Amino acid sequence: MTHEDAIRLFGKTLRNLEQWMNKAEAHAKAKSFEVDVLVHARLAPDAFDFARQVQSGCDQAKYAAAYLGGKQAPAHADTEQTFAELKQRVEKCLAFLETVQAKDLAGAEDRKVAPPWLGGKWLRGDDYLIHVAIPNFFFHATMAYAILRHNGVELGKMDYIGSLPAQD
Amino acid sequence: MTHEDAIRLFGKTLRNLEQWMNKAEAHAKAKSFEVDVLVHARLAPDAFDFARQVQSGCDQAKYAAAYLGGKQAPAHADTEQTFAELKQRVEKCLAFLETVQAKDLAGAEDRKVAPPWLGGKWLRGDDYLIHVAIPNFFFHATMAYAILRHNGVELGKMDYIGSLPAQD
Repeated sequence: MTHEDAIRLFGKTLRNLEQWMNKAEAHAKAKSFEVDVLVHARLAPDAFDFARQVQSGCDQAKYAAAYLGGKQAPAHADTEQTFAELKQRVEKCLAFLETVQAKDLAGAEDRKVAPPWLGGKWLRGDDYLIHVAIPNFFFHATMAYAILRHNGVELGKMDYIGSLPAQD
Repeated sequence: MTHEDAIRLFGKTLRNLEQWMNKAEAHAKAKSFEVDVLVHARLAPDAFDFARQVQSGCDQAKYAAAYLGGKQAPAHADTEQTFAELKQRVEKCLAFLETVQAKDLAGAEDRKVAPPWLGGKWLRGDDYLIHVAIPNFFFHATMAYAILRHNGVELGKMDYIGSLPAQD
C-alpha cells in the first residue's frame, strides 16, 4: 500500500461522506425537518459535533497529503454552518488531494513530518501515515457517519465502504 | 506502509481498545453501575452493540492477517456477554496476529482474497487491505469507542491513538 493509495483512499471515503450527507438530506426532507439541525449534532456533550467531524476528517486527509507530498496545505477556516457549506469544504479538500501526485509522494516514507502539535518532535512519513493519518482520518469519518446513524439516517456498511474493485 | 505494518497497527489499536475498556470499568465503578450493561449499548436500535463492534473489529484484524498471510483464521464464536469475556476475545485475536510474520506476508499485495461475502469474486491483497480491512477495522474500533464515549466514559483522542514513535 503506497502513500498515494492512502491519499486516494481518503478521497474515496470523503466522496462516500458526501453520499451520507445526501442521504441525510433526503431523510430530513422525508421527515420534514431542516437537515442543518444535524450540523451541530454530537454523540456526547464534550465531543465534536458533525461539522467538526467533517472538518477534521478533511483536515486529516489534507495534512497527510501536504506533509507526505511536500506541499503547503491550503488554509480552510472552520466556519461551515450548513450541509451545503460542509459539502463545499469536502470539495475543496478533494481538489487539493488531486494536486498531490505519485511523484510528489516519492520518498514520503522517510520525510520528516513535524506537525505543530508534536511540539518540536517529528515522525517519519511512514509513521505519520500509520500512527496518525489513517487512524485519525477514519476516526472522524466514522464519527460523522455515527452521528447521522444515531439521528436516524439510514446508512449501511456499504455506504461507508463504497465501491470495491472486485474481480471475477 | 507494508502489510505487516497494517497488521501491527490493528494490534496496537486493539491494545488501545483494551485500555478504553479499562477506563469504562473504572468509570462504572466510580458511578456505581455494572460495567456489563455497556456490552449491549448501541448508537441506534438497528446498529451493532458494543460487543458486536468489538467482535467485528477483532474479526477484521483476524481475517486481514489470515487472508494476507495465507493462514487459516481461528474460529471465535460471538458468545461474549461481559467485558471480561470481550477482553479475552481481544487477547485471542492479538495472539493470532502475533503468529503472522513478515515472511508470511511477503507478496500479500498480489494474493487473491475471496471472502465468502464477495460471492465468488475476489480482490487483490492490496485492494483488500485498502478498501476493506483498513476502513472496516477502524470503523468498528471507532464505533466501540463512540459507544463508550456516548455513555460517559472519559476518553480522549490520545486514548484512541495510543503511543507515537515521535523522535527528537
